[in-house]
Amino acid sequence: MENNKKMNSIHSSRRRFIQQTAMAGTGLILMQHTPVFSQSNGIRKMTDKIKSKGYAAKDASGTLSPWEFERRPVGDNDILIDIKYASICHSDIHQMKGDWGPQQYPQVPGHEIAGIVTAVGRNVTKFKVGDRAGVGCMVDSCLRCDSCNHGEEQFCDNHATLFTYGYPDKASPSGITQGGYSNNIVVRDHFAVHIPGHISLQEAVPLLCAGITTYSPLMRANFKRGDKIGVAGIGGLGHLAIKIAVAKGADVYAFTTSPGKIKDALAFGAKEAVLVDNTSKLAQYKGKLDYMISTIPAQYDVAAYASAVKRGGFYTQVGMPVGFQLALSNIGLANTGVNFNASLIGGIPETQEVVYYCADNKVLPQVQIINAAEVNDAWEKVIAKQARYRFVIDTATL
Amino acid sequence: MENNKKMNSIHSSRRRFIQQTAMAGTGLILMQHTPVFSQSNGIRKMTDKIKSKGYAAKDASGTLSPWEFERRPVGDNDILIDIKYASICHSDIHQMKGDWGPQQYPQVPGHEIAGIVTAVGRNVTKFKVGDRAGVGCMVDSCLRCDSCNHGEEQFCDNHATLFTYGYPDKASPSGITQGGYSNNIVVRDHFAVHIPGHISLQEAVPLLCAGITTYSPLMRANFKRGDKIGVAGIGGLGHLAIKIAVAKGADVYAFTTSPGKIKDALAFGAKEAVLVDNTSKLAQYKGKLDYMISTIPAQYDVAAYASAVKRGGFYTQVGMPVGFQLALSNIGLANTGVNFNASLIGGIPETQEVVYYCADNKVLPQVQIINAAEVNDAWEKVIAKQARYRFVIDTATL
Repeated sequence: MENNKKMNSIHSSRRRFIQQTAMAGTGLILMQHTPVFSQSNGIRKMTDKIKSKGYAAKDASGTLSPWEFERRPVGDNDILIDIKYASICHSDIHQMKGDWGPQQYPQVPGHEIAGIVTAVGRNVTKFKVGDRAGVGCMVDSCLRCDSCNHGEEQFCDNHATLFTYGYPDKASPSGITQGGYSNNIVVRDHFAVHIPGHISLQEAVPLLCAGITTYSPLMRANFKRGDKIGVAGIGGLGHLAIKIAVAKGADVYAFTTSPGKIKDALAFGAKEAVLVDNTSKLAQYKGKLDYMISTIPAQYDVAAYASAVKRGGFYTQVGMPVGFQLALSNIGLANTGVNFNASLIGGIPETQEVVYYCADNKVLPQVQIINAAEVNDAWEKVIAKQARYRFVIDTATL
Repeated sequence: MENNKKMNSIHSSRRRFIQQTAMAGTGLILMQHTPVFSQSNGIRKMTDKIKSKGYAAKDASGTLSPWEFERRPVGDNDILIDIKYASICHSDIHQMKGDWGPQQYPQVPGHEIAGIVTAVGRNVTKFKVGDRAGVGCMVDSCLRCDSCNHGEEQFCDNHATLFTYGYPDKASPSGITQGGYSNNIVVRDHFAVHIPGHISLQEAVPLLCAGITTYSPLMRANFKRGDKIGVAGIGGLGHLAIKIAVAKGADVYAFTTSPGKIKDALAFGAKEAVLVDNTSKLAQYKGKLDYMISTIPAQYDVAAYASAVKRGGFYTQVGMPVGFQLALSNIGLANTGVNFNASLIGGIPETQEVVYYCADNKVLPQVQIINAAEVNDAWEKVIAKQARYRFVIDTATL
């Protein structure tokens, strides 16, 4: 077999081997069970760890710096992705700063990841070397429970969901999962999605978190063309929520506290964009909307926003406040008669769906490409609500 | 007319007049427009204020003491009720202690009120003197807006809902509404409900808040016979929620932190009663229930309880925590896939409905009759979760 011949020619490190196969783009399958990979004949086993470099938090200060580390070897069900782009989600900042609990450092953030497959394990059929692939917020789960079987791996009934960075992971040389602000990632094949050729990697990458996080509850809301959909908070998630809902035929009402985003929201297709410099501004929309999604990642007056939804309607929170704790007025919510729920990203099948949907329908995020060295500056801008609307790290600059 | 003859015979105070007509039980209508009530002929007008006595909070200490005060005159659309029983709701304590904001004192609490109609205004057709009547949590609203027209006066669109005690009320001599721990009340006829003869006043009285507050969301949940309904928090509200849901055909699962209430919950008809001394106890019920209502009036782990409801199901909060603010984990709620809503009492037509339903179906609260002087002791017991399950003040002891 041609593949075996190629394999036999490799006498250098596994890393170099992978780079070479990637360049060859042959769809090579790693076959750890074949003698060519055994220690006995002097050829490096495919159990070698993967050298990686990225930007990591070393403490809770909220600043990142370069870090070289190792990833686990490519297992039978794994693929290795040469990361091309990784985008910045507000969650990265929250978690690195310990807003959601104490963290282990160094920790590489990043859960919006896209690149090229450079190696695949022997059991992998979903990808071949050379494929364009993306990774979002999770990298493993049990894949046997009801939730996993129903494509809701983020709710794995066996609590085996492994999020992309900062989660205890015995297989990881650093003891925790390490994210995408880096030059490569090893991930179980199931948790990567295909990125079709008719969308750029840099525009696809925000779909892996911001896209699926808004797409999933919007689809669950099951709205009809012409329904009135509210989007609260117009940032990385919110601007995609507008575009997706508009593409799906909704009349979108955008609510923002940033005067500078009014014009943008209208450009994204919103029918109305409302400056909520005071929650009293919401009164005129009382009961007007069929559904509302909030991407606001901080404490706010939930009931005031929910009052814009008709009685008996639904309101979904996807923004993640500090401590994951959101305080709401039960009297205020009772007054609205609205059902409040929360949504956490979306499962892998639906993540694949949103990537295809956005590629097919040209639902594209607004991205700003930055060099790796600009990441701390970009974080400051995200905190200051100055991102327009997703910073994407070009990992070639690492 | 016989009534006019009676009226002509009255030369004493309006209060005495009302007492006399009440004793006569004639269904007398107060006719302020007739000469017999004018100042000009020396007969006291029906615009005289009503003398009243009750137990009031004088400050935020959480203790009550006797207080004599005045209520507004009986207007054209009002009825005067001679209060026989008033029961104690945890909300009374919260509000008097300022847990929901600063209060004006003296303030008479009590929004579970039942007695006998002793006078009616000239426009009143809903009641006649001698009728058994109850008053709940509200005593006025605009009665013109959509919400009022749909029997949801507690959500009056014109923000004219007047709650039974502590709300600014120009018509009240004390400047605020005064509640039911007293010997009488003047109330707009629409806001009183009939109490039929086949339920005792002392057993009817908790229905005016605890009953309607649980009945309304349970009916809105639209469950079928045999559905699994959770009730969290087994106190004044919770014990009625169990009884109502059982009467409506549900399999009820009761959740309490009080070991002593397990046996009671089963006696009320619960299929299972679960001691939640640790929220891990809820894990075995994950996704098992069709619906859940929580009467817990304090901060608690909402998502842990909500996890007992099936994905896509509904969870209603009726207990009122301090500050009306409930903190919940948006990640936890996302994990459950459950819709959280809140419910505030119920409208007047539904309040009438619950009274008839409970009377007809012998759905009766567990009451403990107390003397007025025992009210502070009873409040301590409510706070210590020792009420079994509703203290009812016999206002004859005032």
